[in-house]
Amino acid sequence: MWFPVLVNSMLSVVAYVVTLRIIPRFKDMFVKADLYGVDMSKSRKEKIPEALGVVTGCVFLITLFIFIPVPFSQSILKNADFPHDEFVELLSALLSICCMLLLGFADDVLDLRWRHKLLLPTISSLPLLMVYYVNFNSTTIIIPKPFRPWFGFSISLGILYYVYMGMLAVFCTNAINILAGVNGLEVGQSVVIAASITVFNIIEVGGDLWKAHQFSLYFMLPYIATSIALLQHNWYPSRVFVGDTFCYFSGMTFAVVGILGHFSKTMLLFFLPQVINFVYSVPQLFHLVPCPRHRLPSYDIRTDKLEASVTRFKMSDLNYLGKLSMTALKVLHLVHWEEKKYCTNDKETYVECNNLTLINFVLIRNGPTHEATLTTILLAIQVLCSVLAFIIRYPLASLFYDV
Amino acid sequence: MWFPVLVNSMLSVVAYVVTLRIIPRFKDMFVKADLYGVDMSKSRKEKIPEALGVVTGCVFLITLFIFIPVPFSQSILKNADFPHDEFVELLSALLSICCMLLLGFADDVLDLRWRHKLLLPTISSLPLLMVYYVNFNSTTIIIPKPFRPWFGFSISLGILYYVYMGMLAVFCTNAINILAGVNGLEVGQSVVIAASITVFNIIEVGGDLWKAHQFSLYFMLPYIATSIALLQHNWYPSRVFVGDTFCYFSGMTFAVVGILGHFSKTMLLFFLPQVINFVYSVPQLFHLVPCPRHRLPSYDIRTDKLEASVTRFKMSDLNYLGKLSMTALKVLHLVHWEEKKYCTNDKETYVECNNLTLINFVLIRNGPTHEATLTTILLAIQVLCSVLAFIIRYPLASLFYDV
Repeated sequence: MWFPVLVNSMLSVVAYVVTLRIIPRFKDMFVKADLYGVDMSKSRKEKIPEALGVVTGCVFLITLFIFIPVPFSQSILKNADFPHDEFVELLSALLSICCMLLLGFADDVLDLRWRHKLLLPTISSLPLLMVYYVNFNSTTIIIPKPFRPWFGFSISLGILYYVYMGMLAVFCTNAINILAGVNGLEVGQSVVIAASITVFNIIEVGGDLWKAHQFSLYFMLPYIATSIALLQHNWYPSRVFVGDTFCYFSGMTFAVVGILGHFSKTMLLFFLPQVINFVYSVPQLFHLVPCPRHRLPSYDIRTDKLEASVTRFKMSDLNYLGKLSMTALKVLHLVHWEEKKYCTNDKETYVECNNLTLINFVLIRNGPTHEATLTTILLAIQVLCSVLAFIIRYPLASLFYDV
Repeated sequence: MWFPVLVNSMLSVVAYVVTLRIIPRFKDMFVKADLYGVDMSKSRKEKIPEALGVVTGCVFLITLFIFIPVPFSQSILKNADFPHDEFVELLSALLSICCMLLLGFADDVLDLRWRHKLLLPTISSLPLLMVYYVNFNSTTIIIPKPFRPWFGFSISLGILYYVYMGMLAVFCTNAINILAGVNGLEVGQSVVIAASITVFNIIEVGGDLWKAHQFSLYFMLPYIATSIALLQHNWYPSRVFVGDTFCYFSGMTFAVVGILGHFSKTMLLFFLPQVINFVYSVPQLFHLVPCPRHRLPSYDIRTDKLEASVTRFKMSDLNYLGKLSMTALKVLHLVHWEEKKYCTNDKETYVECNNLTLINFVLIRNGPTHEATLTTILLAIQVLCSVLAFIIRYPLASLFYDV
């Protein structure tokens, strides 16, 4: 059982070393190809190569391509029946990830539109859903105890379960993408999520569903290895940016192991900060409150610190839903909110409000913060949420399910 | 047997219409992303978007993703045993193609080095070789009759057969890439090859190995549909260029159907012009004769026609092998060759020789030619070679094999 995981770990170490070394060699190539950005939160305005996630993604894929025969070595050597169903899972997972890596890179190069960002992960997850259908087609969920009087012990969701899985891919790819904008945050949070999944897999690999968790480990170990190498180059001050490529590739990798490993609900628990960030962003994402093109924290060149960025608008610009949601946030003290009138008899009230992202929220609570510290705080939140997730998953779950 | 092919054809028609329509919409995006080239053989020097092959590749993949469940609909509906081994073939084929599309696009964007161009197709074909191993692992080849006294009836190549298949992918991807440089030629030749494979599949689908040929048709029909749409935009005068992306993607698609369809030798017959072009190029590719960076025909702006481009060097620059190979080409009248001395007592002989590509060869035979005519001639050669291939495959094969 542990032999393939051991080989996988060794390959991952190699992948780590390779990724760490080749990223600097690709930097000039990316800048020359017009794939670069300027770091808004630095005093030096140099060209930082963008979309280096494609390099880690390719190393990750190559590692797994080389790894493919290993889990099947027993049945090959013993001339036993080949487990085609397991092989199918591995290939469909790789296909979905590879497809997403391609689309992510295309997005970085071509700047695709929003509708593509929702459509493409859905399409990439089709092979995965097909494999889920032929290998398991279990769409039954166990109802938590408190709800059993109404829904019974379990319920079969049928097609809805596939819609849920398709949306999972869309959610994972975009959730990481919108909690971004500070050096090292995209990769850092992904590494924490991947590490949490790995811990969960190692706990569960002793149980009945050990195959599913072993399968997940095959992906998580090289993922963590290549991502840590990327993080070392992406940590403050970033020498490379990771691009949408990395977020797409990461999100799909998580969705794949969650779906084929049958632990998509547990996996979503590890996305708690992303969910919070998404919910907090809703008023701006759905334009109930004006949303500027970028919501990055603003950089104060004198102090070398970041402050919450704000958006300004007239109170009368808000519709009913906008006012309602902002009142809720104000009551809960979750927003920096200043109302001004420019002269005493001005009928119009002008509002200054922080952009609704988790990053800005940390900044309004913590005051101006150095970028590296900010990333560390946000990653600490991610780790705490993972601890919370494990508490929900293990001690608390027994309140809702028969364990 | 014909139901999935029928559905596939209908999807291909849709794919054709979609590709034809979306290519123009992506043009500005590509130019803005710095993905463009200037047509060297036109008087107007405008920016032509480059690497549009990624669009056809994506439409092709999406078409096949949607198609995935169709061939298995019978076993799904009848609740019969699911043919995982066939599913594995489909997925591994898509994985290799998707991987190659990603690497091709990365090459267009980043300008990868030559060693990558050889390494990457090899890596992309790993999943394919693994599937070949577990599903067939037949590495036995039948020896042609005349050689049987020495080698026997058949010979098992073992690992060598896998090396051959890996090299097939490298060959196919690069062969199309080096017979290029005239509007419409890359796509045109690929369509002719794909059409030839399709005809071959339709002939053979009545035979014992019908499954393999049906499998090949699943890929060839949407490939032809999307490529023809691309050809309409890429034909003289090109509004878009196809990029290495297209050549890589096409080459891998051919390699995939050749390997998993068990007709890689027949498929190579359809690559006759590419083989000829490669062999003819060898003296320059291996630097026996000086090789300029570009070997495109040169454009005469006054006549709007193309002429063979030449390379100039001193006779004394050639080593022994260079002289030998060029003498052979001169004897066979396969090269334009002019020797000059600049003054009567100059010891050095200066040589002017056409660049060794099939395109330039057609030009030295035909004289200056309009670009559209040149592409048509080259495609006519491709069609003639396919006819020859069918003659070799059917009437002639009986001389060498028991049919």
